Amino acid sequence: MTFAATVLTIFPEMFPGPLGRSLAGRALDEGIWSLDIRDIRESATDRHRSVDDSPAGGGPGMVMRADVLAAAIDAASPQGDDRPRLLMSPRGRPLDQARARALAAGSGVLIVAGRFEGVDERVIAARGLEEVSLGDFVLSGGEIAAMAVLDATIRLIPGVMGNAASADSESFADHLLEYPQYTRPAVFEGRAIPGVLTSGNHGEVARWRGEEAKRLTAERRPDLLARRESTKPAD
Amino acid sequence: MTFAATVLTIFPEMFPGPLGRSLAGRALDEGIWSLDIRDIRESATDRHRSVDDSPAGGGPGMVMRADVLAAAIDAASPQGDDRPRLLMSPRGRPLDQARARALAAGSGVLIVAGRFEGVDERVIAARGLEEVSLGDFVLSGGEIAAMAVLDATIRLIPGVMGNAASADSESFADHLLEYPQYTRPAVFEGRAIPGVLTSGNHGEVARWRGEEAKRLTAERRPDLLARRESTKPAD
Repeated sequence: MTFAATVLTIFPEMFPGPLGRSLAGRALDEGIWSLDIRDIRESATDRHRSVDDSPAGGGPGMVMRADVLAAAIDAASPQGDDRPRLLMSPRGRPLDQARARALAAGSGVLIVAGRFEGVDERVIAARGLEEVSLGDFVLSGGEIAAMAVLDATIRLIPGVMGNAASADSESFADHLLEYPQYTRPAVFEGRAIPGVLTSGNHGEVARWRGEEAKRLTAERRPDLLARRESTKPAD
Repeated sequence: MTFAATVLTIFPEMFPGPLGRSLAGRALDEGIWSLDIRDIRESATDRHRSVDDSPAGGGPGMVMRADVLAAAIDAASPQGDDRPRLLMSPRGRPLDQARARALAAGSGVLIVAGRFEGVDERVIAARGLEEVSLGDFVLSGGEIAAMAVLDATIRLIPGVMGNAASADSESFADHLLEYPQYTRPAVFEGRAIPGVLTSGNHGEVARWRGEEAKRLTAERRPDLLARRESTKPAD
C-alpha cells in the first residue's frame, strides 16, 4: 500500500525539492509513497487570492485565514480520510523518532506548512490539526519542516532502506546517541583507527561501541540518558 | 556584508531548493547572503569518486571517509576562514533559536551534510566540526537539516524580515510559545474571535496574550517554562 502524503503550502514549487532525490526520491519513483501538493491559494475566494489578513487585536505580521485553510484541507482530504493532520508550527510538540515511526506505520499524513505570524486558531480546532515542531527554533515557514517530517518518516517505511539493520542500530532507537564511526584509511593525518575496531574480536567491538554510545550520550545529552533509565523495564 | 554560507554535500542538486524561494530566496537574490554548494565527490581520489567505505569493526551501512571530507572542507574553506563549521548529525547538540541568532550575527557558516551511517570520527576532530542536530529524529541525510539551519538563521539577518518586530514577539524569544492568533472573518463555522481581541483595549489584549502564551507553554512545554524561571534575573 502506498503511503499517501499531502502537503498544503503557498509555495507548491518548493516540492518535491530535496524529497525528489536520494532515498525519498527513489521511494517516490517506486510508488512506495505518493506526494500530493496543494496550493492553499487555490482555495482563496477573492481576486487577489489572499490567504492571510492582519491579526485581530493588532500586532506585527499576518495570520493565515481559517476559512481559506479549512477549504484547502477539505479539498485535499476526502471524507473518511483518517490520516493524521499536522500543522508545522514552532508552538507544536517537537518531532521525535517514535513519532516518525508511528507515522511510517500508518497510511499517510496531511501536513499544513504554516507561514506568516501564525494560523487562525479556529481552523486548528475545527479541522483537528496537531501542531508539530522540529525544535526550539523558528523557520520562515513550515515547508522545510514538512520535508524533514516526511524524510524522517519515509526512510522508516518497510522496503525504503536497503539495510533494515541500519534503522535498529541508529541514534534514538535506544535513547542513546550513536557510537563513533571509522573507516579506511587506517591512519589519517597521524590519527589511527582505535585498535579494538580492527582486532576482529566481535565481542570487544560490541562492548566498546556500547560504552562509547553511553559516554557520548552522558556528555552531550544527559536528558536522553535520564529518559532511558526511566523507561527501562524493572528486573 | 554578505553572510557567506557553504554547504558540503553529495547531493548538490538539492540546493538552493526551498532556500531559493520566499524570504531566504529574496535575500539570496538581493545579495544579503551567498550560498556556495560543494560536491564532496569532487574531492574523491578514485575513479568511482567514492566518498564512503565500510565501518571499521563491522556493522551495517557505510561511513564517510575522513580524507575525502577533509579535502573537501580544505578546498571550501580558505586559510583564515573563521566561520563556524557544523556537521548535521543526530548525535549533535540540538539547534535552538539562540544558536540561530548567534550564527546570524556572524560572517557565515560552513555546513557538512552528513550521509550514510556516519562520518569518520577523525575528520570531525581534525577539522573542528561541531555536530548539530535538529532534534531527536533521524533524517536520510543532512541536506534538509542544513536547509533548516540556514532558513532559521537567514531570516534573523538584519534587513531580511520586513518587520523586525515579528522576530521579537515570536516563539522562544522569551522561552514562551506564541499566543493564539485570529484574523477575519469575525465568525468562522460558529466560532467567534475572542471578544478581548476586538475590544480595542490594548492593555487587555497584551494581558490576554501574555496569559495565553503562559498557559499554552505550561500545557505543551513545561520544560521551556522551567528554563524560563531559571534564567529570570533576580529582583
